[in-house]
Amino acid sequence: MALRPHLKTAKSVQVGRMAVEGHDGRITVSTLAEARYFAAGGFRDILYGVGIIPAKLPAITELRRQGINLRVVTDNLTVARSIADAARGGDTFSVFIEIDSGGGRAGLPFPDMPGLIDIARVLHGAPGVELAGVMTHAGHSYHQSTPDGIAAVAEQERLAIVTAAEKIRAAGIPCPIVSGGSTPTATWSRDFTGITEMRPGVYVFNDLDQALIGSCGPEDLALSVLASVIGHYPHRNQMLVDAGALALSKDVSAQEFQPKVGYGTIAHAPSKDMAVVECSQEHGFVASSDPMPYGNMPIGTRVRILPNHACITAAAYDRYYVVDSDLDGGKSIVDIYDRINGW
Amino acid sequence: MALRPHLKTAKSVQVGRMAVEGHDGRITVSTLAEARYFAAGGFRDILYGVGIIPAKLPAITELRRQGINLRVVTDNLTVARSIADAARGGDTFSVFIEIDSGGGRAGLPFPDMPGLIDIARVLHGAPGVELAGVMTHAGHSYHQSTPDGIAAVAEQERLAIVTAAEKIRAAGIPCPIVSGGSTPTATWSRDFTGITEMRPGVYVFNDLDQALIGSCGPEDLALSVLASVIGHYPHRNQMLVDAGALALSKDVSAQEFQPKVGYGTIAHAPSKDMAVVECSQEHGFVASSDPMPYGNMPIGTRVRILPNHACITAAAYDRYYVVDSDLDGGKSIVDIYDRINGW
Repeated sequence: MALRPHLKTAKSVQVGRMAVEGHDGRITVSTLAEARYFAAGGFRDILYGVGIIPAKLPAITELRRQGINLRVVTDNLTVARSIADAARGGDTFSVFIEIDSGGGRAGLPFPDMPGLIDIARVLHGAPGVELAGVMTHAGHSYHQSTPDGIAAVAEQERLAIVTAAEKIRAAGIPCPIVSGGSTPTATWSRDFTGITEMRPGVYVFNDLDQALIGSCGPEDLALSVLASVIGHYPHRNQMLVDAGALALSKDVSAQEFQPKVGYGTIAHAPSKDMAVVECSQEHGFVASSDPMPYGNMPIGTRVRILPNHACITAAAYDRYYVVDSDLDGGKSIVDIYDRINGW
Repeated sequence: MALRPHLKTAKSVQVGRMAVEGHDGRITVSTLAEARYFAAGGFRDILYGVGIIPAKLPAITELRRQGINLRVVTDNLTVARSIADAARGGDTFSVFIEIDSGGGRAGLPFPDMPGLIDIARVLHGAPGVELAGVMTHAGHSYHQSTPDGIAAVAEQERLAIVTAAEKIRAAGIPCPIVSGGSTPTATWSRDFTGITEMRPGVYVFNDLDQALIGSCGPEDLALSVLASVIGHYPHRNQMLVDAGALALSKDVSAQEFQPKVGYGTIAHAPSKDMAVVECSQEHGFVASSDPMPYGNMPIGTRVRILPNHACITAAAYDRYYVVDSDLDGGKSIVDIYDRINGW
């Protein structure tokens, strides 16, 4: 099975190159800005994994004419016809049909998948258009927190896309790629039969949410936000740090499994349940179940905050400072990786 | 009374210049990056409104040596002493003492304000250090939604800083500036006696939260996110748009007063309560209390989404496209304003 990592998490060519090392180099992106950036960084097989609209086809064509196999996704017959129309001028497209395997986001809902064969016929029948395959994202795996629960979602994911591919093939239409993927299902699936590639993303960094649902261990979180203690408030057993809603994001997905993580926990915290429990734009409110250790954490103390959701927190930054150890105050930055933000 | 707008909302010199038009040009910022950017843009009296720490003093000095009156804030005796020490080398500082007027974020908690006079004495007694005054942010005004409720918070705000200033003056120490401010209290306060400046911020754009609490009318929202319909899902009466958690932010502050706003409402919506009710990174789930008008909103339809909290949503972008009318597809962009993000 091939790996097509979703690089929307890191949005960084340096991380992307590490992710595809030992694999064939195919990747997934979530914006046209990422597609252009990774194309410029040498990536050639790129799946733009958010439902395409006709107005974006010229941007797709622009990269495809440069030799980038930028592939698109649809679940809509009208859009499929627009793609077929756009290809009449001599341009080519490579298209995935998206299946909703139970997550309830994009895709033709399994098991009915209404219109699946109609869309497949329009794409397959259009000169210059390749029906690349079927794809799904089992986003509902994020709401399971046991290997058994995630494995059950993984089996739904597999069944949906393998069934879709079989239906298309039964109609006499090739369906070469059967693409699944999420970090939890890639980690805990017990059967990949029929799947040809997986597209996990957040595994490149991991985060509190992934640790809590069991995709990684508590020591496997590669991303943190460096902040400073800026205030002591003994009358309410809190401190403030200079990292708030913009530095951490307001994503609290991990609270589904552990409300005490707040907007992020303090790495190597000197007291119990130390976390950012509230945020304003540039202020983070740090609380603890223990008395706050003010003596050990004077104003100016640097702390590392582990985020709920790495993809969303990282988006506040235009680069990564790669360090070898924690709480070093920036003294052992060994590399800087860039990022592509925006659209 | 002077206006010292908090430019953390817009983070844009063009907006900043409009905000200070007819006033004396003093502003507030929330990051050192903003301070440098607005200084380069010609602003000379800048309050860095997030509690200062000693490690940031060299950056303050660097701008002050360029003739920028970059002022800082503290509520901590140890920090006050560090500022006094830093001034011994001949550099100058202008410092506000922060008061907690009831919001429970930074500041010496009113009415006790423990250490107020000690901090004032250290700052006033240090050659090269000016005690500029006292300041507060009545953040709790955001949780009121009636003129009376907000006016009550405004009176707490006024009482806290005016009392603090009087205590300092009673100790024989000058306290020239008495600085309050939030958009709701600036709008609904009934008595500004003793206050010398106000620091509202979000009023430059307004947002769903401000509209719901009554700081502005429903037609006063200047900021929106332009997105496209990318999918139709009649089996669950939803659409998807290509604006998700990164484009809108995960701030849901306005849900405190109206849960149906979700992550943002659709401007000029053709059906009832049409809003982004769920977000993944690049997907927004649009729902409505009515049957979804798919026929009027084919794939590719552009929609404008009004955000919960303008300050947080705007931070995902590096510029503003200034348009004259809604839903114009970008055809009447009359200007582009830049922004400073990061720290």
